[in-house]
Amino acid sequence: MRRSQRVVALTRRLIEEPGRWWNLDDLATEFGAAKSSLSEDVALVREVLAAEGAGVVESRVGAGGGIRFLPLMTAGEATELANELCRRLTDPRRILAGGFLYLGDLVADPVLLERIGRLFATLFRDRGPEAVMTVEARGIPIALMTARALRVPLVMVRRSARLSEGPVVTMNYLSSSGARVETMTLAKKALEGVHRLLIVDDFMRNGGSARGLVDLAREFEVEPVGVGVLIETAEPAEKRLKEYVAVALIEQVDVDERRVRVRMSPRLPGCPPAAAAGTSRLA
Amino acid sequence: MRRSQRVVALTRRLIEEPGRWWNLDDLATEFGAAKSSLSEDVALVREVLAAEGAGVVESRVGAGGGIRFLPLMTAGEATELANELCRRLTDPRRILAGGFLYLGDLVADPVLLERIGRLFATLFRDRGPEAVMTVEARGIPIALMTARALRVPLVMVRRSARLSEGPVVTMNYLSSSGARVETMTLAKKALEGVHRLLIVDDFMRNGGSARGLVDLAREFEVEPVGVGVLIETAEPAEKRLKEYVAVALIEQVDVDERRVRVRMSPRLPGCPPAAAAGTSRLA
Repeated sequence: MRRSQRVVALTRRLIEEPGRWWNLDDLATEFGAAKSSLSEDVALVREVLAAEGAGVVESRVGAGGGIRFLPLMTAGEATELANELCRRLTDPRRILAGGFLYLGDLVADPVLLERIGRLFATLFRDRGPEAVMTVEARGIPIALMTARALRVPLVMVRRSARLSEGPVVTMNYLSSSGARVETMTLAKKALEGVHRLLIVDDFMRNGGSARGLVDLAREFEVEPVGVGVLIETAEPAEKRLKEYVAVALIEQVDVDERRVRVRMSPRLPGCPPAAAAGTSRLA
Repeated sequence: MRRSQRVVALTRRLIEEPGRWWNLDDLATEFGAAKSSLSEDVALVREVLAAEGAGVVESRVGAGGGIRFLPLMTAGEATELANELCRRLTDPRRILAGGFLYLGDLVADPVLLERIGRLFATLFRDRGPEAVMTVEARGIPIALMTARALRVPLVMVRRSARLSEGPVVTMNYLSSSGARVETMTLAKKALEGVHRLLIVDDFMRNGGSARGLVDLAREFEVEPVGVGVLIETAEPAEKRLKEYVAVALIEQVDVDERRVRVRMSPRLPGCPPAAAAGTSRLA
């Protein structure tokens, strides 16, 4: 294989499996290349992916040495994503009876979901989550794409226990309105070996579900290292949870005027520059 | 940019967004390259990705012309995936009271899910599905990764109606045991503009859920072009659905002996060779 062919094969592997460690000796053997040539290939791929703002190629030396690709979102791309989300949310055709907004198409779009997952992975990776947890059903696509970008398992909390989950831990909590008792249930096996986890969800009104997920994690003696939600509402201003990240903020849904007022959430932090995320760990 | 840099940038784009059409003029401008050089880059990337069995780079000419990458699974990789799944299923620690098997970790593993999605996309792409439908909750991760590989929306059928879904179509059907009436509900908006869809699910016992999804699709006047399930059981041999694809077949769960007998499902067809999938449409 020539250099230009090797870098295609290398880029394919890195992008297709974010977070996977690739052993350089194995790659050199597979490509029939000297290790010194492969090192130059890696440097080239790293440079292009960094210049494009795609993410960081990390190296580690030693017996288990190798390279891996960590997808990252630049601050510019994060702002673009938030703006696009806001634009899509303002479409008056989303307005449902009772002032609800139809969001089904957003958690159904694999291209948008990939970007949301990459954003949450960028914001929370440094806190070392070992799993991404959400509650069924609309949070699952967002949680899965975040888990994929972080290369950690997805944890799906259910609304009711199923025989096929085996023994479960069940917790009751107050609904958003405060009027109902809701249930969350999780298989005892689901968090085996997990010490730190990231919580994500599609929507937050008063924070009851996210609060429930945080409490459930603690019931399993697992530390919730962060909470990310796609969309929050301005009302109620007081949420049941103090610390969380949100991408879009719905300020008002006017059913009579058929108008939705949305803006980027002040809870969306700037993305850390790729250099900060990667350099210190580069060999 | 030099050729070796351009092919990295090109490979990144193609792999990161399966199925997206990239305009060659735009790419040439972005890379600051002559269109003839870019064509050579594309030929090189296509050749390497094909040789690696990763998938097909398709071209189309004319005004909306450009290239896209269709991820494919080779027959060898499909067999490997089915064998790995069978191996993981035979772990006796999965056995739950009542002869159920714990499957939570399988639908939680983003690496396995990516491969399952690529397999179903390979098997069903030629039938032209415009969406991938499943029923909450454990089918969602498989459906999303299939939808991502096909670059079509995910459609999540719910077990009960929510206010936030707006108007819904609700259908009742018989549970696996035949003893209960279960409900499926889908937002009227969810299938707007969709004429053909693929149905996927994690598990099939007697086929009641899959049958329900097929009937629900027809209720929306949408044609179900295929059904793919990850795991089926040998009993009952008679399913409520004649045509479907399955990856693994659970023959027996022996609770007392703590043994699971699993094999590759005879319902798993061979993957079409990449040449068949791509050549006819290459410009």
